[in-house]
Amino acid sequence: MRLPEHIGIIPDGNRRWAVINGMTKDKGYEIGIDPGLFLFKLCQKEGVKEITFYGFTTDNTKRPAEQRVAFTEACINAVKLLSKEDASLLVVGNTESTMFPKELLPYTKRKIFGKGGIKVNFLVNYGWQWDLNYLKKADEKNKNITNNIMSNDISRVDLIIRWGGRRRLSGFLPVQSIYADFYVIDDYWPSFKPQHFYDALKWYDDQDVTLGG
Amino acid sequence: MRLPEHIGIIPDGNRRWAVINGMTKDKGYEIGIDPGLFLFKLCQKEGVKEITFYGFTTDNTKRPAEQRVAFTEACINAVKLLSKEDASLLVVGNTESTMFPKELLPYTKRKIFGKGGIKVNFLVNYGWQWDLNYLKKADEKNKNITNNIMSNDISRVDLIIRWGGRRRLSGFLPVQSIYADFYVIDDYWPSFKPQHFYDALKWYDDQDVTLGG
Repeated sequence: MRLPEHIGIIPDGNRRWAVINGMTKDKGYEIGIDPGLFLFKLCQKEGVKEITFYGFTTDNTKRPAEQRVAFTEACINAVKLLSKEDASLLVVGNTESTMFPKELLPYTKRKIFGKGGIKVNFLVNYGWQWDLNYLKKADEKNKNITNNIMSNDISRVDLIIRWGGRRRLSGFLPVQSIYADFYVIDDYWPSFKPQHFYDALKWYDDQDVTLGG
Repeated sequence: MRLPEHIGIIPDGNRRWAVINGMTKDKGYEIGIDPGLFLFKLCQKEGVKEITFYGFTTDNTKRPAEQRVAFTEACINAVKLLSKEDASLLVVGNTESTMFPKELLPYTKRKIFGKGGIKVNFLVNYGWQWDLNYLKKADEKNKNITNNIMSNDISRVDLIIRWGGRRRLSGFLPVQSIYADFYVIDDYWPSFKPQHFYDALKWYDDQDVTLGG
């Protein structure tokens, strides 16, 4: 089986899940933490080398305050849980904004936890403009893009899995996603099942890799 | 009905179509010209304001020479046909490379043909690196991205329609595609049917627009 080396995760549908379960929208985020840890462990078990979680973006921070507080809290807790695992962990996002939770500042340099192994990137207050604006500091003569964006420690993504039925990137790592295969699951993220992950891997196995060639 | 203002078209599957029809791969491109003109006219009729065709990318030029010659020729002919219509036409791509056909140089400045109207962009020897490298020339203090990439005359894409079953961007306008909804048709591009287009519009109508918010 051809396994993706790097999987991007867009865990969408938390608010819609909360609403259909009779809760206010902000209650949908906390329930998304356990699925994230579960999925991390499945990736680890299957030998995936790198995984990037879409925590929240600068666009997302325009949502109502109680939602913003709730998803920020969920990201803090998720990163703390991941730091108890065997992983090489990095939080990527704009730390110069007040929207960046200071609890996560210690994670903005890649650090080995436990025995290390799988690379885990967690986008927190990530913005595609913020990411690409770093190119303006680069030397014009250097034609490389991937080393000159803010998220340069995140590799090319092979497979993006998005929950919640939307078929779009919503600002997720535009440069690393350029050749990524995009798999969409209609279920909302809090309804995560291992089968989703294995269905995505099976689908990916049927795709070819051309890198545009 | 909520209509996309700007549709991106990835007309993939020409080579696979040629092979299953007993031809060599390079024969699949010419047959893709008429569907392009047909789709252009449908967009015009339905009131779509802008359409961008994925002609070929710098990645694609690494293919065998007879294929490269064939898709380049098809792009030249397609642009010439479009220039006989009512449209505001622009060819976008790296003209400094020998892979850029000199026949299309006159189209690299936007020009009104006939009565004008719909904006049509045609990517010819387009490269995402080429597009983003232009950011290195911009002033660091200017935080805008979209005005400072080479393809700055191409607007944000609302809906991308890709033929040929692959669910990936393959280097198509990474900045303009950041919030785009992505609709995939399994049929190969030379088997284009108007129903494909109307199915995509219907699907798009069911999506919401959040721009990441």
